[in-house]
Amino acid sequence: MHSFQELTAAFKKRFEVNHFPAEPASLYEPGAYFLNIGGKRIRPVLCLMANELFDTITPDAWHVATAIELFHNFTLIHDDMMDKAPLRRGLPTVHTKFGNSTALLTGDVMLIVAYEYLNKIALTYLQRIIGIFNQTAKQVCEGQQLDMDFEKQDNVQPDNYLHMITLKTSVLLAASLEMGAILGGASARNCQHMYEFGKNLGIAFQIQDDYLDAFGDPEKFGKDVGGDIRQNKKTFLLLHTLQNANAAQQAELEQLMQSNATDKVEKVLTIYRACNVDSWAKDFKEKYVIKALQHLEDVAVVSARKKSLLELTDYLISRDS
Amino acid sequence: MHSFQELTAAFKKRFEVNHFPAEPASLYEPGAYFLNIGGKRIRPVLCLMANELFDTITPDAWHVATAIELFHNFTLIHDDMMDKAPLRRGLPTVHTKFGNSTALLTGDVMLIVAYEYLNKIALTYLQRIIGIFNQTAKQVCEGQQLDMDFEKQDNVQPDNYLHMITLKTSVLLAASLEMGAILGGASARNCQHMYEFGKNLGIAFQIQDDYLDAFGDPEKFGKDVGGDIRQNKKTFLLLHTLQNANAAQQAELEQLMQSNATDKVEKVLTIYRACNVDSWAKDFKEKYVIKALQHLEDVAVVSARKKSLLELTDYLISRDS
Repeated sequence: MHSFQELTAAFKKRFEVNHFPAEPASLYEPGAYFLNIGGKRIRPVLCLMANELFDTITPDAWHVATAIELFHNFTLIHDDMMDKAPLRRGLPTVHTKFGNSTALLTGDVMLIVAYEYLNKIALTYLQRIIGIFNQTAKQVCEGQQLDMDFEKQDNVQPDNYLHMITLKTSVLLAASLEMGAILGGASARNCQHMYEFGKNLGIAFQIQDDYLDAFGDPEKFGKDVGGDIRQNKKTFLLLHTLQNANAAQQAELEQLMQSNATDKVEKVLTIYRACNVDSWAKDFKEKYVIKALQHLEDVAVVSARKKSLLELTDYLISRDS
Repeated sequence: MHSFQELTAAFKKRFEVNHFPAEPASLYEPGAYFLNIGGKRIRPVLCLMANELFDTITPDAWHVATAIELFHNFTLIHDDMMDKAPLRRGLPTVHTKFGNSTALLTGDVMLIVAYEYLNKIALTYLQRIIGIFNQTAKQVCEGQQLDMDFEKQDNVQPDNYLHMITLKTSVLLAASLEMGAILGGASARNCQHMYEFGKNLGIAFQIQDDYLDAFGDPEKFGKDVGGDIRQNKKTFLLLHTLQNANAAQQAELEQLMQSNATDKVEKVLTIYRACNVDSWAKDFKEKYVIKALQHLEDVAVVSARKKSLLELTDYLISRDS
C-alpha cells in the first residue's frame, strides 16, 4: 500500500512521457505544453488508490488513470476557452498562446488520446470501463453547460447548483474511484460505495472551495480571495444567502451585485456573516463529508487498507477551513 | 444486396432517432438541430456497403455507421467554428445560432455519444474497431490543423496538400469501409484493400471538388463556383499552377491573390486554362480513381457483390466533370 503522496509522485513521473505523436507539431505541442503546466493529478491518483484498495496496482489502472487525467485536461482547455481565461496556474492558457482554433483541436485530440489509453485495457473490463467513462464524460459536459446557463439566470436554486456541481465536478472523482475499484476486482456493491464516496467528497470539496473563496486566509488559500463575489458567481454561499436573507439584506445584496465598488467584497461578506452563511457552509460541507466517509466505511475490505484514502480525504477537505 | 440509394434511405431513417438525452436541452437541442440539417450520409453508407460485401448487414455495422456519422458531424460543428462559417446547407451553423461555447460543448458531447455507439458492438470486434476509430479521429484532427497551417504558409507544395487532404478527408472514408469489412468477417487482406479503395476514392473526390469549384457548371454544381479562387484557397489547381506556370503567369497569379477585383475569378481561370490545369486535374483524378478501383477489384469476393460499390464510386466521382 502506498500513501497518496507516493502515488501522486509515481503518477506524475509516469505521466511526464509524451502522449502525442511528433507531427504535426502545430497540433501536438500545444497539448504537451498544457500538460506540462501541471496540476495536482488528484483524479488519476484516486483511480490508483481505489485500485490498490483491492489489489496490487494493475497495469490497466495506470492506463485508465492516464485516460482520466487526459480527459480532465481536455475539459480544462475547452473550459478556459468558454471562460475566456487568459491564465491557468499563472501561465497562458492554450487559446491565449496558440489561438482559439488550435485550442479547440488540441482539446479534441486530447480526448481521443484518452480513448486510446482506455482501449489498451484487458478485454474483460473494456466495455464496462468505456461505458462508465462515456457516461461520466457526458455528465461533465452537461455540468459545464448548466454552469454557463446559470450565469444568465436569476432564479438559480441551491438544488440546481448542487446538481450542476455534481455533474461538473463530482462525477469524475466518483468515476475515477469506481473504475479503479472495478479494475481491482471489487464487487458491484463495493464499486458502488466507492462511487458514492467520491461523489459526496466532490460536493464537500466544492462547498469548501466556495467557502474559502469568501472566508479563506488569503496567504494560505493562494487564489484571489473574494474572486467569486467580485464576479457575482452563483456559489453555494450566494444562493443560500439569497434564499435566507431578510428583505433589506436581499435588496442590498442585489444592489451590490450590480456594482463594482472597491468595498463590494467586504460588504457582501458582512451580509454573509449576518446570515450566518459561514457556519451554515461548514455544517453543509460536514454533511457531505460524513456521507462520503460512511460509504468508504461500508466498503468491505479491512480498514487498515483504507488509511491512504482517509488521509487524502482529510487533505482535500480540511485545508484551512 | 442493396443499392447505395436503398442503404442511404435506410440509414437516414434509422439515424432520425434522438441520439441525446432530453436534459439539459440547452446542450442537446443544438446537437439535434445540427443533425437535422441533413447531409448525404456517405460515410455510414460506405460502412454498411462494405459490411454487406461480405455478409448480410450486422447490427454492429449499424452501430458503427451511426458512430461514424456522429463523429463526422462533431468535426463539422467544430470546423464551422474555426472557419467562422455562418451557414451550412443554407441554415445557421451551431455557433451562429447558439453561440461559441455551446457549439464547442455540443461538438464535444457528440464525439462522446459516437463512442457510446461504438461501445455497443460485440466484444470480439470492440478493441480493433475502437483502435481504428481512434487512429482515424486523430488523423482527421491533424488534417484540419494542417489545413489551417497551410492558410498561413506561402510555400505549400502539392505533396503537402495531398497529405493534408488524405488526413482531413480520405482516411475517414477509408476507415468507414475498413470497419464495415471487419464487422463482415473479412480477411485482413480484404480489409486492407477496402481501406485503400476508400483512401484513393477520397483523394479523387477532393481533386474533383477542387476542379468543380473552378470549372463546374454553376447550375449543376450547386455551390458558388469560383469560391476557392476568391478565398485564395490552396487547392490542387492553384498549387499545381503555381508550380508549373511561367514567371509572368506566376507574377500575375500572385498579384491576383492580393486583389478582390470583380474579374479575379475569370482572370485566374484564364491562367489555369493556359497552364492546362483543367486537363491535368482530370488526369490526376483519374490516376486515383484507377488506384481505388484496382483495390476494389482485388477484394476477394465474387464481382457481382461489388456492383453497388461501383455504382457509388461512379456517383461520387463522375458528377459533371
